[in-house]
Order: sequence, then C-alpha cells, then structure tokens
Amino acid sequence: MRAAIEQARKGSTPFGCVIVKKDAVVVSAHNTVSQDQDVTAHAEINALRRLHAQKKKTDLSGYVLYTTCEPCPMCMAAILYAGISTVVYGASITQAKHYLPQIDIASPEVVARSPLKALIIPGMLQAECLTLFEEFSISGK
Amino acid sequence: MRAAIEQARKGSTPFGCVIVKKDAVVVSAHNTVSQDQDVTAHAEINALRRLHAQKKKTDLSGYVLYTTCEPCPMCMAAILYAGISTVVYGASITQAKHYLPQIDIASPEVVARSPLKALIIPGMLQAECLTLFEEFSISGK
Repeated sequence: MRAAIEQARKGSTPFGCVIVKKDAVVVSAHNTVSQDQDVTAHAEINALRRLHAQKKKTDLSGYVLYTTCEPCPMCMAAILYAGISTVVYGASITQAKHYLPQIDIASPEVVARSPLKALIIPGMLQAECLTLFEEFSISGK
Repeated sequence: MRAAIEQARKGSTPFGCVIVKKDAVVVSAHNTVSQDQDVTAHAEINALRRLHAQKKKTDLSGYVLYTTCEPCPMCMAAILYAGISTVVYGASITQAKHYLPQIDIASPEVVARSPLKALIIPGMLQAECLTLFEEFSISGK
C-alpha cells in the first residue's frame, strides 16, 4: 500500500494503485483522467490495462491489487472481469465522497451481485490514504 | 441503433456501440476484449475513449450513446463520468445473462446511486439485438 500511496503522489489526485504477485509489485499507476482527458483512466483501470499489455492475456487471477481508495463500480467491475484474486484498499467510497462525487455502490456489493468473485480487504493504511484526500482538497486541484 | 448492430457484427461478440450528436454518428466501436486481451475493451468504453481522444476533453455532455446491450456497471459508470446525456440500449442485462455472465446491476440503478445523471431509454430494436446474442450463442464463440 505504501507503493500505491507513492503512486498517488506522482499524479494530481488521491488515487494510486499497484498490482502485486508473490509480494513483488508488477505494475503501478495513478489516475490520469485530466492528463489523458479520458474518464476511464482511473488508477485501477490504468494498472489493469498495463498488466494486460505486459502479459498479453485477460486472465489476471493470482494477482493482488492495492489501491488507495475503494474501487468505484467501473474499476470494481473491471477487476472482477480480469479475475484479480484480492483487492486491498485504503479509504472507503463513503469517506471519499466527502471530497469528490462518487457513485455510491461499495465494492463488496458489486462482488455480491457478480458471478465472478474477489476477496476485498478494506482499510489498509487508511489514515495515510485519507491524508491524500485532505491534501488534494486543500490544494484545490 | 442499426449502426450499433452493424458494429457488433464487425466483432466477434453481440456488443456494438455508436455515439451520436445531432443525428450524426461521431464514433463507433465494438467489443475488442479478446482481440486486445484487455477486459476493459467493452464496446462502450472503446467508443468513449475514441471520442475523448478525438475531442481531447473529458466532458461529453450533449452526446447520445446507442448500444446493443444495456451497459454493464463498468461502462455505465464511465458513461456517467463522461457526462453522456442519453443512453439508448437494445437487449437488457437480464436478457444478456442468459448468454454470458453479467454483473447484475441494471443501468438505472447505477444512475440512481450517482450524483451524475443520464437519461436511459431501453429496448430499442431489442429483437434484432437479441438475435446478435442468439447468433453468438450458436457460433460457440
């Protein structure tokens, strides 16, 4: 999660993500929506697309995704489609919506209503991840 | 919607999409998940990304998106983030899940739980869109 937080700091939003296998970071990404002028360029989607391009396969089972904020429904659906085994997040959607508009569908609900499954582990380094939102809010980005 | 159906026929899945402004098709796309080995490459995401690249902006308000199948939560969230004004679809998620695994969250629910809004018009050329699923099912793709 520290690597995901570092990723977020490389961009201009509180969102950073790394995908890990056997305790090694395989890909990293931050949110590049403004930079790329592409609403789909969330940190998680960027990381998934990078790993797909690297591995040349859609099946990413066995990988663990760490993200500074609970995945939105767009990202959570993509994570399930990719077969990512475990998602670890810091700040929750409920917390994030104090800073930025959010679609109010929590990631476990997306999993519960999907035939595809992933384990979700909430709240890792939550205070540090919330600091990213505080800093973003203060900077007025 | 006929143009979206044509798009679907260009790919190997029942999913095709066009984005329209003032009755003119601006971009077209089909699902390229297998071709690109990228789970995010749904028809709607491909079309949005193409239009973002063309217009070099995230705000796609004023555009109408036609898709052969009701957008999944990934695509519906992206559509809302882009500010697409109206979504017109053919087959519903409820119908599609007879043919392919689907996350069971209908597009109006994603809208209802979002601070961003879009008008959704269901069932246009539904029989023709369902034929795409039937053909896909028979072909065993």
